[in-house]
Amino acid sequence: MNRIPIREVQETLAGVLLKLGMSAKRAQICARLFAETTRDGVYTHGINRFPRFVRTIQNGSVDVKAEARRVSGFGALERWDGLRGPGNLNALTAMERAIRLSREHGIGCVALGNTNHWMRAGTYGWQAAEAGMIGICWTNTMPNLPPWGGAEPVIGNNPLVLAVPRESGPVVLDMAMSQFSYGTLESYRKKGEMLPMDGGFDEAGNLTRNPGAIEKSWRPLPVGYWKGSGLSVVLDMIAAMMTLGKATHELSRDPLFEAGISQMFLAINPAAFGPAPRSAEIADEIVASLHVSKPAKEGGKVRYPGEQTLRVRAENEKLGLPVEPAEWQQILAM
Amino acid sequence: MNRIPIREVQETLAGVLLKLGMSAKRAQICARLFAETTRDGVYTHGINRFPRFVRTIQNGSVDVKAEARRVSGFGALERWDGLRGPGNLNALTAMERAIRLSREHGIGCVALGNTNHWMRAGTYGWQAAEAGMIGICWTNTMPNLPPWGGAEPVIGNNPLVLAVPRESGPVVLDMAMSQFSYGTLESYRKKGEMLPMDGGFDEAGNLTRNPGAIEKSWRPLPVGYWKGSGLSVVLDMIAAMMTLGKATHELSRDPLFEAGISQMFLAINPAAFGPAPRSAEIADEIVASLHVSKPAKEGGKVRYPGEQTLRVRAENEKLGLPVEPAEWQQILAM
Repeated sequence: MNRIPIREVQETLAGVLLKLGMSAKRAQICARLFAETTRDGVYTHGINRFPRFVRTIQNGSVDVKAEARRVSGFGALERWDGLRGPGNLNALTAMERAIRLSREHGIGCVALGNTNHWMRAGTYGWQAAEAGMIGICWTNTMPNLPPWGGAEPVIGNNPLVLAVPRESGPVVLDMAMSQFSYGTLESYRKKGEMLPMDGGFDEAGNLTRNPGAIEKSWRPLPVGYWKGSGLSVVLDMIAAMMTLGKATHELSRDPLFEAGISQMFLAINPAAFGPAPRSAEIADEIVASLHVSKPAKEGGKVRYPGEQTLRVRAENEKLGLPVEPAEWQQILAM
Repeated sequence: MNRIPIREVQETLAGVLLKLGMSAKRAQICARLFAETTRDGVYTHGINRFPRFVRTIQNGSVDVKAEARRVSGFGALERWDGLRGPGNLNALTAMERAIRLSREHGIGCVALGNTNHWMRAGTYGWQAAEAGMIGICWTNTMPNLPPWGGAEPVIGNNPLVLAVPRESGPVVLDMAMSQFSYGTLESYRKKGEMLPMDGGFDEAGNLTRNPGAIEKSWRPLPVGYWKGSGLSVVLDMIAAMMTLGKATHELSRDPLFEAGISQMFLAINPAAFGPAPRSAEIADEIVASLHVSKPAKEGGKVRYPGEQTLRVRAENEKLGLPVEPAEWQQILAM
C-alpha cells in the first residue's frame, strides 16, 4: 500500500478530470471529494472508485460539463434537475442549497432528479453538519436488493444519511439498506471468512453467512429484513415523486449505466430560534451516555455513528492517503 | 374474542376519558385514535393499550387537560411544548401544524418536546398522507434497547414513520428500531415458538431465536445490528436538540413514567410546484414493480409497507373491533 499526500491525490485526479473536459474549478472540487472520501476511511468510494467514475464519463452516463439547475421552487422546497452531471458535484450543490434554504426558512429541502451516483453518501451529511445544520439525505439506486418476500433484486440499497452538528465532531450516520454491501461480501470471500451474521440467501433460498453464496444468488439481506426492505421502497417513492424523476425499477441494472437517479436533501437549522447553547450540550450528553454504558465485551466500547472518522482522517492526513500501487498507476496513466 | 362496533368502542373510551377530566371534544378525538388503531390491526397500541394509558393519567405522567402549544417559530420550522399532555392528541396537533406549514412553505417541521407516548406511530403518517402530504415523523422512547456493542438498554427503539400519499391507499412505513418488540417476543413465547430469525442475545451474550431468553436478558437486537443502533441514536439526538427536550437517557425506564419525550414531525407537499399527475403515477408504478417481481416462495407476493391495512380496516369496520372479553370488561368498569 502506497501513501500519497492528499494534495497530490487531489491534483492528480483533477488533472484527469480536466482532460475529460471538466472545468478547472469543478475538477478541483470533484477531485477533492474523492480524496476526502479516502481520507475519511471510506475506501470503497474514494480513490478506488475513481476509475469507474471516469468510465461513466467516457461512456456518456455522466455529462462532465452539466451543472444541476433549479427547476421550480416554493418557499423552503425546491426541485432541481441534475442534467446527468457528475453525481458528487450535483449532490454538493443540492445540499448547499438546502442549507441556504434552512437559513431562510428554518428547514430547507431540495429534490434532485436526473442525477448520478453521489459516491460517498456521508459527504453531504458532513457538509450539512459542518455548516451547523442537521442534514438528512438519501438517494435511490439501481435495483440491487430483493425486497422482503422477493427473490429478485428489484429494490435499491438506497443509502440514507442523518447528520448532527457537534463542536467536537459531527455525528453522521451513513447507512445503505443492505446489511452488507457487495464490496464487503467480496472482501470477506477473498479473506476466506464467513460473515459474522446472516447476510443473505443462498441459491436454495436459505439464510447464510457464506459471502460467496450471496454474491451468486444476488440475494443480500435488507437491514432488519422486512423493515429495511420497506424503508428502501418508501425512500425511493419519496425521491422519485418529489423529483418527478426515475424510480429504482426504471434504472439500469448495469452499474456503468446507473444514470438519472433521484435524491433528497434536507437541512434543519438548530439555531433557527436563536442561539441555544443547550442544543449543543444535548448531543454531547447523548454521546457521553453511550460511552459510559456497559460494553457487551470486556474492554469494548459503545460508539456513536461516525466516531472513528476524525481519528482515521487525522492519520491519513498525516501519513498520506493509502492507495494500492496498481490502482494509483492506473490513475496516473489516465 | 368479542367484536364491538367501532362507534361503541369510541364512545366507551371517550366516556372513560371524560370521567378522568378530559374535555368532551378531546375525549372523542383521543378515543377515536385508540379505536382506529385497533381497527387498522395494530392491536398492541389500540384498545389493548388503553388501560395502561389510563394508568399514566392517574399516576400523573399524562396531564389530561394539557394542550400542546407553540413556543417558537421561524418560517417553516416550529418548536412546540407538549406540556405533558396526552401523547396521541399532542402528536395529532403537531402533524396537523406541520401539514399546514408545508402548504405555506412546501415543507413544514414541528419539533414537539415534553410530550408523551403517541401510541401507534403510523397514525401520524396516515394523517399526513390523507392530507396529501408526504409525512416523516419519529419519537424517542425510554431506554429499552442496547446499542450495538453494548450490554445495557441505554438507547430507545425510537419508532420512525415515512408515509406517502396515494389515491388507492397511502404507503406507510412504521418501524421501531428493535427487530422484535417486547410484545412480539411475549407472543412467540406464549405460543411456545422460536423466532424466525435471531432476535437478540441471551444472558450469556449469544445471538438467539429464543424469545424468553431475550426477555430475560433485556437485549433485543436493533434492526440491522449496528445500523439500527446508529439510527436510533441519531433520531434521538435530532429530536432532543430541536425540542430542547429530553433525550432517551434522561427518561424513566418505567413505562408508566416514560413522560416528557421528544418527537419530530415533517410534512412535504408533493403538489407544491403545481399539480403533477406524474407524481401520483410514480408511487403506483413502484407498487406495481413490487407486485410483478418474483416472490421468494411460490404463490407468495411482495408487499409494500402498509399494504394490509386497508383490508384489515374494512374487515374490522364490518365485523366490529376484536377485543378480549376480559379486557373489554375492565374498560367498561372504568
